[in-house]
Amino acid sequence: MSLELPYVVSADATGAPITGQVDFSRVPRFAGPGTFAGLPRLSDVGEASAGVIGIPFDSGVTYRPGARFGPAGIRGASELIRPYNVELESYPFGAHQVADVGNLAVTPFGVDRAVDAMLTGLAAARERAGKLVILGGDHTVAYPAIKTLARHHGPISVLHFDAHIDTFGSYFGAHMHHGAPFRRASEEGFLDPEGCMHVGIRGPLYGPHDLSEDRALGFQTVHASEFSTTGLDGILEQMLRRLGERPVYVSVDIDVLDPAFAPGTGTPEPGGLTSRELLYLLRGIAPLNIVGADIVEVAPAYDHADVTSLAAAHVAYELLSIWGR
Amino acid sequence: MSLELPYVVSADATGAPITGQVDFSRVPRFAGPGTFAGLPRLSDVGEASAGVIGIPFDSGVTYRPGARFGPAGIRGASELIRPYNVELESYPFGAHQVADVGNLAVTPFGVDRAVDAMLTGLAAARERAGKLVILGGDHTVAYPAIKTLARHHGPISVLHFDAHIDTFGSYFGAHMHHGAPFRRASEEGFLDPEGCMHVGIRGPLYGPHDLSEDRALGFQTVHASEFSTTGLDGILEQMLRRLGERPVYVSVDIDVLDPAFAPGTGTPEPGGLTSRELLYLLRGIAPLNIVGADIVEVAPAYDHADVTSLAAAHVAYELLSIWGR
Amino acid sequence: MSLELPYVVSADATGAPITGQVDFSRVPRFAGPGTFAGLPRLSDVGEASAGVIGIPFDSGVTYRPGARFGPAGIRGASELIRPYNVELESYPFGAHQVADVGNLAVTPFGVDRAVDAMLTGLAAARERAGKLVILGGDHTVAYPAIKTLARHHGPISVLHFDAHIDTFGSYFGAHMHHGAPFRRASEEGFLDPEGCMHVGIRGPLYGPHDLSEDRALGFQTVHASEFSTTGLDGILEQMLRRLGERPVYVSVDIDVLDPAFAPGTGTPEPGGLTSRELLYLLRGIAPLNIVGADIVEVAPAYDHADVTSLAAAHVAYELLSIWGR
Amino acid sequence: MSLELPYVVSADATGAPITGQVDFSRVPRFAGPGTFAGLPRLSDVGEASAGVIGIPFDSGVTYRPGARFGPAGIRGASELIRPYNVELESYPFGAHQVADVGNLAVTPFGVDRAVDAMLTGLAAARERAGKLVILGGDHTVAYPAIKTLARHHGPISVLHFDAHIDTFGSYFGAHMHHGAPFRRASEEGFLDPEGCMHVGIRGPLYGPHDLSEDRALGFQTVHASEFSTTGLDGILEQMLRRLGERPVYVSVDIDVLDPAFAPGTGTPEPGGLTSRELLYLLRGIAPLNIVGADIVEVAPAYDHADVTSLAAAHVAYELLSIWGR
Amino acid sequence: MSLELPYVVSADATGAPITGQVDFSRVPRFAGPGTFAGLPRLSDVGEASAGVIGIPFDSGVTYRPGARFGPAGIRGASELIRPYNVELESYPFGAHQVADVGNLAVTPFGVDRAVDAMLTGLAAARERAGKLVILGGDHTVAYPAIKTLARHHGPISVLHFDAHIDTFGSYFGAHMHHGAPFRRASEEGFLDPEGCMHVGIRGPLYGPHDLSEDRALGFQTVHASEFSTTGLDGILEQMLRRLGERPVYVSVDIDVLDPAFAPGTGTPEPGGLTSRELLYLLRGIAPLNIVGADIVEVAPAYDHADVTSLAAAHVAYELLSIWGR
Amino acid sequence: MSLELPYVVSADATGAPITGQVDFSRVPRFAGPGTFAGLPRLSDVGEASAGVIGIPFDSGVTYRPGARFGPAGIRGASELIRPYNVELESYPFGAHQVADVGNLAVTPFGVDRAVDAMLTGLAAARERAGKLVILGGDHTVAYPAIKTLARHHGPISVLHFDAHIDTFGSYFGAHMHHGAPFRRASEEGFLDPEGCMHVGIRGPLYGPHDLSEDRALGFQTVHASEFSTTGLDGILEQMLRRLGERPVYVSVDIDVLDPAFAPGTGTPEPGGLTSRELLYLLRGIAPLNIVGADIVEVAPAYDHADVTSLAAAHVAYELLSIWGR
Repeated sequence: MSLELPYVVSADATGAPITGQVDFSRVPRFAGPGTFAGLPRLSDVGEASAGVIGIPFDSGVTYRPGARFGPAGIRGASELIRPYNVELESYPFGAHQVADVGNLAVTPFGVDRAVDAMLTGLAAARERAGKLVILGGDHTVAYPAIKTLARHHGPISVLHFDAHIDTFGSYFGAHMHHGAPFRRASEEGFLDPEGCMHVGIRGPLYGPHDLSEDRALGFQTVHASEFSTTGLDGILEQMLRRLGERPVYVSVDIDVLDPAFAPGTGTPEPGGLTSRELLYLLRGIAPLNIVGADIVEVAPAYDHADVTSLAAAHVAYELLSIWGR
Repeated sequence: MSLELPYVVSADATGAPITGQVDFSRVPRFAGPGTFAGLPRLSDVGEASAGVIGIPFDSGVTYRPGARFGPAGIRGASELIRPYNVELESYPFGAHQVADVGNLAVTPFGVDRAVDAMLTGLAAARERAGKLVILGGDHTVAYPAIKTLARHHGPISVLHFDAHIDTFGSYFGAHMHHGAPFRRASEEGFLDPEGCMHVGIRGPLYGPHDLSEDRALGFQTVHASEFSTTGLDGILEQMLRRLGERPVYVSVDIDVLDPAFAPGTGTPEPGGLTSRELLYLLRGIAPLNIVGADIVEVAPAYDHADVTSLAAAHVAYELLSIWGR
Repeated sequence: MSLELPYVVSADATGAPITGQVDFSRVPRFAGPGTFAGLPRLSDVGEASAGVIGIPFDSGVTYRPGARFGPAGIRGASELIRPYNVELESYPFGAHQVADVGNLAVTPFGVDRAVDAMLTGLAAARERAGKLVILGGDHTVAYPAIKTLARHHGPISVLHFDAHIDTFGSYFGAHMHHGAPFRRASEEGFLDPEGCMHVGIRGPLYGPHDLSEDRALGFQTVHASEFSTTGLDGILEQMLRRLGERPVYVSVDIDVLDPAFAPGTGTPEPGGLTSRELLYLLRGIAPLNIVGADIVEVAPAYDHADVTSLAAAHVAYELLSIWGR
Repeated sequence: MSLELPYVVSADATGAPITGQVDFSRVPRFAGPGTFAGLPRLSDVGEASAGVIGIPFDSGVTYRPGARFGPAGIRGASELIRPYNVELESYPFGAHQVADVGNLAVTPFGVDRAVDAMLTGLAAARERAGKLVILGGDHTVAYPAIKTLARHHGPISVLHFDAHIDTFGSYFGAHMHHGAPFRRASEEGFLDPEGCMHVGIRGPLYGPHDLSEDRALGFQTVHASEFSTTGLDGILEQMLRRLGERPVYVSVDIDVLDPAFAPGTGTPEPGGLTSRELLYLLRGIAPLNIVGADIVEVAPAYDHADVTSLAAAHVAYELLSIWGR
Repeated sequence: MSLELPYVVSADATGAPITGQVDFSRVPRFAGPGTFAGLPRLSDVGEASAGVIGIPFDSGVTYRPGARFGPAGIRGASELIRPYNVELESYPFGAHQVADVGNLAVTPFGVDRAVDAMLTGLAAARERAGKLVILGGDHTVAYPAIKTLARHHGPISVLHFDAHIDTFGSYFGAHMHHGAPFRRASEEGFLDPEGCMHVGIRGPLYGPHDLSEDRALGFQTVHASEFSTTGLDGILEQMLRRLGERPVYVSVDIDVLDPAFAPGTGTPEPGGLTSRELLYLLRGIAPLNIVGADIVEVAPAYDHADVTSLAAAHVAYELLSIWGR
Repeated sequence: MSLELPYVVSADATGAPITGQVDFSRVPRFAGPGTFAGLPRLSDVGEASAGVIGIPFDSGVTYRPGARFGPAGIRGASELIRPYNVELESYPFGAHQVADVGNLAVTPFGVDRAVDAMLTGLAAARERAGKLVILGGDHTVAYPAIKTLARHHGPISVLHFDAHIDTFGSYFGAHMHHGAPFRRASEEGFLDPEGCMHVGIRGPLYGPHDLSEDRALGFQTVHASEFSTTGLDGILEQMLRRLGERPVYVSVDIDVLDPAFAPGTGTPEPGGLTSRELLYLLRGIAPLNIVGADIVEVAPAYDHADVTSLAAAHVAYELLSIWGR
């Protein structure tokens, strides 16, 4: 019996070797390496075409903190993930090299300094690991993620799943916090005002101006209440029409789910989506030109039996599956 | 920095000043006064047009006790509520004065004595705070609430969201308990036999007589299973048709939700509504003539991450929003 | 006051006496005997027409263990069950004698020895208690259950509610585990290859071969994602058509429910059914010729406020209700 | 494999057969019958020399309710108990017949009616099962227990382990509640004013009169703070000296333990005993003439991993061990 | 029945009226006003001689956040506190006016700005409410508390109960965080280098320099391990000798308790004190000249059954009791 | 900002470079690599003088399963550990190279096959990583650990901290399970009958023969009850005298702690040690010739706020500190 865990090895379209997940027919899932889905670390494979990266940062939250433990929670819950995506008919870890990049070590003291470090770290990660799914951390991380992508793609579109619009203004005099990443990104010209979209919005706001300002930034909104009356395919169609061929950043705040499905989060809002609805929509956007993504606001201290982390792990898996078709 | 928390101040239609919520752009939500949604106390504003009042009483329960901590749980979870109701396009705390009346201090020993105290307390509260949303406590509180309203309005209608019909008979020889408020209210003539309605009923009963007796008291029933096949708008239409122009008491037992959405309750029943369905229906009944309401049976000891209390807080908010249009 | 708890007594069609549940109008639910739904023990009534039996075994699990405490959890949560099934218009405990058979004491060390003991125990229980609903325990128990029934009925059909197909191959060299009971049963000729069905399947697999091999064993599949687009009645119709007049074993892995509805289980998978959907389908299969059933994979250590156990208790109740019409 | 669980059988001093615990070398602990420590039910053995009896009643509590689920919690946690008491060198279940009497079904509505039912039930149980250890339920149960014993023994002594003196006066006009059983018992002449004792008292009171009135009723007090400076043997000596040869009722409120050791209780008080200290003292009182006992105020909804129920189960075991020497 | 809760009213030594706790013989504890121990709000009594004030701030934490909910947790757990301190023979709420000052609303974004706001707020509170017990929040709050006191008293002594020395240096380049308040206070001259003391220190450090630097700042240390071998009275004597007649600030980090007694905290360290030991020492320091105090680092999201909050509430009560003798 | 986390680098006595923990002054603790205490992986440093290795195996348990998640739980809780051991004045990670070896992947199906794999794996690990602290897993792992050491050292002594003697016989016909590792090891000649010792034993047994057989195997016992009357130093002295100069294996079952300190375990037993007592004793055995160690039976599903895992992590740290002096 070797001390090294065995990995599934395959080859990509060019014949280059790919290290996949730990071989879970030989390694019990609870004996794995602790990486996302048992994938190799980036340091073990050198470089990759796609990666997951943790940003354990939650100093931008306005209510319950704890998303700093989100990456650990999501990685833990990802042990159950198997290699073949039935609905998309893809082997996301077999089509090209996917790696776990690890965590960015950013300061909990000072949002601006932390965002600067994220910018540097994400640029480096993109260089070595290709397309990234970020495991938050709070929603602040979307701002540096978008800024990094906009440097390459120009203004991009955002497909934003959330209970909240996150284009709020300053809070306690601070402009950079988890309720404002898209306002900041838009004001600085990183967003395409023709192609952004919120899905799952609900709950009270400060006033109708929140919505009008949001529309002015280029966001179209599918309210959660529409899911009670409109079919999923109708909503999906709206999304595909709005986003079209643009480079899209997919940002998933886990609180888009109802608190029953995602209790482990900082600003829960009743009346949300089910995990089945969310996963259905994520599979449906496979045709989009997705250039980056995040899954944020998982706060394990408020979770139970990992249900929130499990949902988040599957969000990340579906996004990786799109890239691995 | 003042020791007094700042409140949002506005004016009603007549120009009279209104004290709204604590100003959550200056006060972190977790630093608020501990009242429902950060509203002023009734003692601070003297009188109000609408109020929330806690009745921490659970000596009428037949299974899991703990709803005595319901008002505290719901107030805690209401900190996240913002002032503008998007769907109803109303500012419930800005249209007229709304206040937190506090708790009624009723004995846990002796249901009858407690009900008497509730009658006195609710009459006093109605005098000073206008229309009331009661935070239970167990469902026993609906009986004195209805009796108080019937004194002013004559027999009223009840729109009752619950897993259980709550027109059961005596239990262990007791006639007054949380499974019988509507039977008591009906037998004493406080209910309009032409206009009552249950929504969300499910689970086994003692026999078909439960349903026939219930019908005889004037209740029409929408079973939870109908939500699987009938659209929400169809159910809403039934409700509006049945209730019409009558004075209506809206009574929401949080166990109308599935245990996944409301684990923190005393007699959970699988197969229930989602919070999205419930909130949709509550917004849909805005045209009704609602004269009083309750949200009951929240037992925080069985809750997790406040999901039950959060749902209950939003139920109260939607009801207050109807009055604040 | 007697030390013996009073039971509801009735008579079956032939006039023979039936001991039903403890009389919950006289015994508080939390003071009952600790049996399923307060039913008499088999040893108290001698024999029965239908029974529930616990198999506290979880040595076949591949991820989170704990289903050994499933029978205790489900019995605890069954205290709230009342005698009349409204939807099926049946008194399941009044039509014929139903009893709680107790637990089978099988070893946690050695899956094969445990399965042998289950075979002996189930045969004995069937002899004395008639049709059985098994309270698992992990899904391994389905194999001896099916084998026992096939001895009497020949190859039978399986209606299998689960997130996973459970026709996987060997794991760590072991052929008998909770992911393979239906493969084993099929390979040994106990299943009718014309009439088996999975409902609720979702999540990633090892590859497309999992599905093709599964089809070869005779399973037709309703994926969970189909619930987002197909109505429940359409799915029900598929089920009734596939199963027809055959003798059917109904096997319900509680993880067919979404983790929000069933966190207390070993291999949770987001995107699942709601309890309302599951109970609707179970009532809909009343016309089938059901010869045995199980409800498995309830792991109370991961449950919260008994929501998983409650759902499982109602699954068992619905199945018993079909037999008691 | 038989459907009946095997029990350990032995004989008492007269050669009469004794049914002991289920044989846990053949039955996994989690597959047992659900009785206290796997003992036979009283109905199975007819009569006994000692018994445990549950009184699932908590309508006398003034803060957190939930002790109605105490008997179920304690029975569940007692599965791990083995037959031989090392410190006392006794086989408590082998020296004479011990049985689980089951629960008394008393109403949750009306403390006085419930107490009446307890009196009847305890008298009947004493008749058939001999000396009793009561599993509460709230502390109200001590009053009928003492009254029942005083009928046979005349005024008795009480050795009372608790954070609170429980000789408080009326609360909300009620004289019978969980804070007053010993005042009631004393006022009615059931207590020997020369021989009662509290151990573990701590926390604030209403005033010095609480203590002077308590002394007047015959109680001597060992404060919890004395455990920090006095050795256990010194405290034990005080207890043995005070109680001497009298008939003693031992009443253990689980909140005598610090909340770290017993979080699952209704009125927790920091600064309490450790479970090691409590068990040490219980073993030390073996020489006393104990005629009855209770272990009360276990509220499983507030427990974690059964630590409170485990401590309570061992309290009951130690008391039974004294009788079984 | 009045809507206003009744309070216990008494008079101080000069005959001036004092409003004490809500009258808990008439108001169930769970129906109180939500203030610390049911005391009046400062705004209701105008001014006071002693007060409790919440500082819901946790942006200085280095591991688990969540102490922002500490004040709410401690207030909730304080409902059980009664008026008479048995050990100190004092009525802390009857000797002079004590009030709940409410919370300071400080920003979660930016430690320095928050500390500035605390300085202003604490000065205002001291003016109106006299001596203060601060309910944290994280340990950062000790710095502005000490600075405020030093302005009046000159350099003061600190009696510091904690697992950690909290004289650490910068972390991630930040000088102001929850591990450094005493280093900051000392460097700025607010501490008396002859009279400071840590009690309960344990766990690994960065190196021996941590201890030597700490000594240089004037701290003497009682390690937690000394509690295993030295009697409490010996430790108390060391404390009294070191502090003498100086003005003392008592700072209690709840993690001085072992995680068994205080799981709800951010940087738990095994091997700590019991709550009985801590309360014993707090009662023992009654002779000291205490000019201010805090109880910090309670993080309710990690608590269970409020055991941590309960311990913290009693710490605050003991400190208030010293002032109320 | 680099993607690689920075480590503290030092040199051993020979000047060879040592990679220590991740530099926690630059990397937030929650952003670390997920290894024990942030140590490097063995694969990163090639070889080591001491290591920690996980054996996620729990198929030998007789009651609550779940210790398979023990290694993950302990690693998570070890993030707070700092480098300098104050009491032992040692830098355990700076004196020689220490590494995290990862997990042994052994089958959950079949105890014997699993033990064989452990033997192979432990031999390989010992070869490359030197002295090992094993993170269990259930207590079965002690058998292969001892066997591996006995091959090098001949019969060794065992210093065993536990509530249970773990020299029980067969259970359900199985000889190898978590209650018997020391009986197996002794019977096969791996234990020195002159020098073994249990510490912390408590709770009922099957009979006095358990103790006499245990003594015959060479075990001396310090019962938990002795901690109530004997000072820690006295107990320590007994231990040092018994073990002397022999090669010793230290085996720590976390249930040696009271359930208040270690709720997250499989067979909890009230009346146990405090974590302060256990850590004191572990520091006290530094003079012994320890050749290997384990910390077992941590079951995170039953833990709360990681208190059990924290205690276990510190047990491992103290053991590593002894080797690193």
